[in-house]
Amino acid sequence: MKTTPTQTIVQALKAVREQKPLVVNITNYVVMNNTANALLAVGASPIMAHSQQEMAEMMSFCGALVINIGTLDSQWTPRMAFAVEQANLNNRCIILDPVGCGASALRTETSRRIADMADRLIIRANASEIIAMAGEAGSTRGVDALDSSDAAIGAAQYLVETYGASVVISGEVDYIVTAQGITSLHNGHAMMPFVTGMGCSLSALTGAFAAVGETTGLAAAAVMGVAGEIAAEQSNGPGSLQLSLLDALYQLDEATLLARLKIA
Amino acid sequence: MKTTPTQTIVQALKAVREQKPLVVNITNYVVMNNTANALLAVGASPIMAHSQQEMAEMMSFCGALVINIGTLDSQWTPRMAFAVEQANLNNRCIILDPVGCGASALRTETSRRIADMADRLIIRANASEIIAMAGEAGSTRGVDALDSSDAAIGAAQYLVETYGASVVISGEVDYIVTAQGITSLHNGHAMMPFVTGMGCSLSALTGAFAAVGETTGLAAAAVMGVAGEIAAEQSNGPGSLQLSLLDALYQLDEATLLARLKIA
Amino acid sequence: MKTTPTQTIVQALKAVREQKPLVVNITNYVVMNNTANALLAVGASPIMAHSQQEMAEMMSFCGALVINIGTLDSQWTPRMAFAVEQANLNNRCIILDPVGCGASALRTETSRRIADMADRLIIRANASEIIAMAGEAGSTRGVDALDSSDAAIGAAQYLVETYGASVVISGEVDYIVTAQGITSLHNGHAMMPFVTGMGCSLSALTGAFAAVGETTGLAAAAVMGVAGEIAAEQSNGPGSLQLSLLDALYQLDEATLLARLKIA
Repeated sequence: MKTTPTQTIVQALKAVREQKPLVVNITNYVVMNNTANALLAVGASPIMAHSQQEMAEMMSFCGALVINIGTLDSQWTPRMAFAVEQANLNNRCIILDPVGCGASALRTETSRRIADMADRLIIRANASEIIAMAGEAGSTRGVDALDSSDAAIGAAQYLVETYGASVVISGEVDYIVTAQGITSLHNGHAMMPFVTGMGCSLSALTGAFAAVGETTGLAAAAVMGVAGEIAAEQSNGPGSLQLSLLDALYQLDEATLLARLKIA
Repeated sequence: MKTTPTQTIVQALKAVREQKPLVVNITNYVVMNNTANALLAVGASPIMAHSQQEMAEMMSFCGALVINIGTLDSQWTPRMAFAVEQANLNNRCIILDPVGCGASALRTETSRRIADMADRLIIRANASEIIAMAGEAGSTRGVDALDSSDAAIGAAQYLVETYGASVVISGEVDYIVTAQGITSLHNGHAMMPFVTGMGCSLSALTGAFAAVGETTGLAAAAVMGVAGEIAAEQSNGPGSLQLSLLDALYQLDEATLLARLKIA
Repeated sequence: MKTTPTQTIVQALKAVREQKPLVVNITNYVVMNNTANALLAVGASPIMAHSQQEMAEMMSFCGALVINIGTLDSQWTPRMAFAVEQANLNNRCIILDPVGCGASALRTETSRRIADMADRLIIRANASEIIAMAGEAGSTRGVDALDSSDAAIGAAQYLVETYGASVVISGEVDYIVTAQGITSLHNGHAMMPFVTGMGCSLSALTGAFAAVGETTGLAAAAVMGVAGEIAAEQSNGPGSLQLSLLDALYQLDEATLLARLKIA
């Protein structure tokens, strides 16, 4: 009997809480606190480390590697490349968050280089970053695109084929694009983009779920979407949303997850 | 008919929310999250970026540049200098937050060097930082100073003349000092100094307002003061104040702003 | 008449609020905001600074130096070493938080090197970090260890003797280990480990109390434990706990502290 997407999500959340996987994050200065807290709240164990002097050790015992290029510079790019090499050697999943891809040549090129290096890759980004990362080559898929979602999905399919990756496109609707097909999630809340680093937290959670074997990005997006909409309903604005999200991730139980989940 | 200061503030807030200006921040590690969230909450779009490999691009499409020296070192100073050059080339306003000016020679000299380089400058700081930045040259204005506010205003006037800047002095009373005169704001709350980075958030907001043409610093100080006092009234301490401020910035409407504003 | 541990704690909190000591922190990117806010909330004055260009000045006027190796690399280690030298020259207490000691050779070696350099040292860590820092030499004390607490206390006693330090072991029970003996604190809450940087905030507070002469680490651990349990009782999860802790530190009065304190 085939596992349904809903069963996959529920089992993955249970596994994260039981196994408490170690997730190593090389992420940006802005969101380090939030992403570490999101991992703790969901039941995982964050490690924020970047030094090449310890990355081989870190990759030998961690469950997954998250790379986020949000505050990139020439000191961080070699650290990221080295960590990807070490993750490959240890057969760890790599989650790439190409923050601001398309906003500068540095970001676009670094995103593509990391994707090219990574053996086991999940890319988590918003539509414009996915489109920028695919570039002209990917846009040929979008020739018949009816709207920007179609363009992003076309670009994501290009990234799936080019890098052997799973791709999660975050937005009002989240799309999980793999070689097997497309799943869409309709959870979340319109207030979430008013908090910095919500996507970065999703990328971190994607690392926790990948570490327990859910390597499509689906379960993390589902849990984040449901927790985010619960949190937003309890919040007066983005300040309270930021903290309520952590409370909601911590409290989220299977019944609530199943009752809220909008998957297609 | 001349626009009153109150009209300027109200129109500027409306413009920020309509135009959602991109504000590039080179700021300190401590407050990156808060300042990005303050910009999002008020309706602007933060970019936290510092690499010289992408700063020319960033300055070509952003609305303003915020430089905050809170966690300065020899790697950050050249990044700041390069960003100021690029901002000048693109005619962008530069907001300088000289955190800790006077606490070390490094901070005092870096503050003055950035101010000297910047073509279109707003300085936002507390009284002691303003006095330290002006130094002995500025203190001659303070000979007849009745209190520390007078000394700070004298120092600010020196900075206005020397650098062609607008200066915002934050404190129990905020002073906006320009070549045209002095405006004072009596909003805010005594609990605000118990949260780190409140001044840094104001400097970031000053960038958002400068990007829509309000280049004195007045509107940002007014919005921050009113939102801060609303937030403090709803808070049990500095922890809840930090998040309530973001909620208050997000919710702030014209009627509340007008009803609360204490300007002279 | 000898001062009791309880009297020491109460007097130290009073002294921090009266003297508002300046605490210089070289800490990790993840917790800089939290630790600065914890210091402000308790009544102290945080400075987050690391540049070797200003550390001599900072050490000349500060009250204590906190070194936290949470996001270590080859750029940060020389900054830490230089700051320790300057703290020694100025007779400042150094609080070492050896985050992740044992997880990599880099962390273990750096922790030991800093401890070796520091003249006046307090080490604040969890049990596994303390055990890792003491290493095989320290484990001989644990031969008869009945449980992991015993092993950690044995390791802590080794660190006390080797480095002339006080050692605070954080956990469900906190142990303050000095040359004079062992004190245990039974405050705190099981939700606290779900918030990143709680230990780091305790290390920062330890700096504030050391700056007013309480150089064992006891008072900081007591205040943090009591504030943490008050905050947890008011929280729905780790998001609200993070902010409630700051509110509780800010509001904590002597009567509440005395009523809650569980010391042995």
